[in-house]
Amino acid sequence: METELSKKLGIEHAIFGFTPFPAVAAAISRAGGFGVLGAVRYTAPDELKRDLDWIEAHVEGKPYGLDVVMPAKKVEGVTEADVEAMIPEGHRQFVKDTLAKYGVPQLAEGEASGWRITGWMEQVARTQLDVAFDYPIRLLANALGSPPADVIKRAHDQGVLVAALAGSARHARKHADAGIDIVVAQGYEAGGHTGEIASMVLTPEAVEAVAPLPVLAAGGIGSGEQVAAALTLGAQGVWLGSLWLTTTEAELHSRALTRKLLAAGSGDTVRSRALTGKPARQLRTEWTDAWDDPAGPGPLPMPLQGLLVAEAVSRIQKYEVEPLLGTPVGQIVGRMNSERSVQAVFDDLTRGFERAVDRLNRIAGRGLR
Amino acid sequence: METELSKKLGIEHAIFGFTPFPAVAAAISRAGGFGVLGAVRYTAPDELKRDLDWIEAHVEGKPYGLDVVMPAKKVEGVTEADVEAMIPEGHRQFVKDTLAKYGVPQLAEGEASGWRITGWMEQVARTQLDVAFDYPIRLLANALGSPPADVIKRAHDQGVLVAALAGSARHARKHADAGIDIVVAQGYEAGGHTGEIASMVLTPEAVEAVAPLPVLAAGGIGSGEQVAAALTLGAQGVWLGSLWLTTTEAELHSRALTRKLLAAGSGDTVRSRALTGKPARQLRTEWTDAWDDPAGPGPLPMPLQGLLVAEAVSRIQKYEVEPLLGTPVGQIVGRMNSERSVQAVFDDLTRGFERAVDRLNRIAGRGLR
Repeated sequence: METELSKKLGIEHAIFGFTPFPAVAAAISRAGGFGVLGAVRYTAPDELKRDLDWIEAHVEGKPYGLDVVMPAKKVEGVTEADVEAMIPEGHRQFVKDTLAKYGVPQLAEGEASGWRITGWMEQVARTQLDVAFDYPIRLLANALGSPPADVIKRAHDQGVLVAALAGSARHARKHADAGIDIVVAQGYEAGGHTGEIASMVLTPEAVEAVAPLPVLAAGGIGSGEQVAAALTLGAQGVWLGSLWLTTTEAELHSRALTRKLLAAGSGDTVRSRALTGKPARQLRTEWTDAWDDPAGPGPLPMPLQGLLVAEAVSRIQKYEVEPLLGTPVGQIVGRMNSERSVQAVFDDLTRGFERAVDRLNRIAGRGLR
Repeated sequence: METELSKKLGIEHAIFGFTPFPAVAAAISRAGGFGVLGAVRYTAPDELKRDLDWIEAHVEGKPYGLDVVMPAKKVEGVTEADVEAMIPEGHRQFVKDTLAKYGVPQLAEGEASGWRITGWMEQVARTQLDVAFDYPIRLLANALGSPPADVIKRAHDQGVLVAALAGSARHARKHADAGIDIVVAQGYEAGGHTGEIASMVLTPEAVEAVAPLPVLAAGGIGSGEQVAAALTLGAQGVWLGSLWLTTTEAELHSRALTRKLLAAGSGDTVRSRALTGKPARQLRTEWTDAWDDPAGPGPLPMPLQGLLVAEAVSRIQKYEVEPLLGTPVGQIVGRMNSERSVQAVFDDLTRGFERAVDRLNRIAGRGLR
């Protein structure tokens, strides 16, 4: 499975795997793909350093990358406390009431909220970059808009390719104009932040919009047939995130969450602003229902919503409060029905890809029978 | 482009075209695809008879089919007047006020509303079938659930294949259990009634759910690359509706509507209950915005909404009130940028398909360069 981009990066298969887990990222790269570590959960630079060291020790010299979240709009001199102060009291009360309704216990005294949204803030992302540029990363991806010009320059000076996620052709063109190298076209069916254009329509639109820049297709890809379909649409590779969540190398916060993912169907996700304030696809839960209920206060804009719910999400995860327990995940969750190693998942993708090519050739009468 | 299903139907390309226009249906079949005439707009059996006669005279012996809308739930002995009586006065007033706000003129005295929703009602669909079964149709499709058992039997007795649209794997299995022959998997990005699962995810799910029954992929398909992607996902053919709306053979009510379709991007549609009471993708207009506005009364359930807005839609179309003027159409509207003949569109699809197969073979290293 070779495209211009896969050749450029020296990988065997044009399969990019986004994951918050270092063991998953390393395994994807070892399997012949390209592992991309999501940095948003790291608030302490030392933790990121520790995990990049781990990847270096386990990636067997294969290339890998880092995904940060730098907001397109820069807000100068705003601290987390300033942002906290913008949260209305009614919203805080709604969080308290909802948690109380489900009997969600408090965190222990002094116990930090495990998952903070501060990674969204530019100063945090910049600290992550200061760490990451000490490692031989080959790709820097940004999940929110194009990275700032100085970051793109710094990456290019170090020979690091820059990728940015886009939910529309217009968005993709903006990234191209900013000087990025790769567009990740994130379809409606994808987990995490998404727009409303489905991959089948978005992928070729993004390809046309930014050619000759390469496009990776994201959203709805969890089988080799789907990999083949995305490449047929003009993508130079695929970007998979959800599929790795139920691999044996993944370290989800809770077994209950893994069970929920394994049981969920493609109709069990929702595109909701409950998590960050921007529409993001995730498991539908009684928590997302509460935020999406017209009778409630509704989610705040980013970054307020993320700060508002960070501690609540930690409590829900820690105490495995099943009706409220969720995670960003795409519609592809419907085919995540067993826990397997990254290598097994990868083998499935590459074998399915070959089968799909065979099938298409038969339909096209290309004589390969 | 040959699949088991295309062989069975004796067509050259596994491309099915759904259209309300006889000239488009005949041209699709003549081009080597399979034209399917939408019957929902026919209220008088004679009009349907006239148009089927026209197709017979122009299809050059090629196979074609008919698409009806029979509700899954049968309501015995309910007349249009009974249904009209269920519409709340507040909703009627909202229609009046909205039309008045835009200065939409009345229809002339005695001038019938051109487009009625009564085609949704089972007795109307049955009358259509009585007409259609006198013609050598090869396929009967139903857009809402499985057709009643006696209709399936009657079709099979005449050697007519039965297809039903499905928006989920569960829905597809229900159809298979009812004895239909073909599932049309209608993705989120499709025009008209749709579910929330995108084609990239839905197509393979439907294929697995009903194998060995054939699945046609619908939604997001407007180029040969997208045809190839859908077939790669396991479909035995594609079902295209939107793409034909801007062909020269199409007879839209208004030139202004054609211009709007040609100008629209993939982000200019909305999945709204404004048209029929069930979620249907259509051009986003100030009319759909009014119905989707939380401050308004919101749409009524099917079939009330369709009856409520039928006359208003006719007035908007007749007087080409641009801000309100819309039509069911999929996200693929973004690539409908010129008026061309059905044959030209078809040639584009088949050429693009071959290019896409070439490209995938290059990526797979199949030695075709």
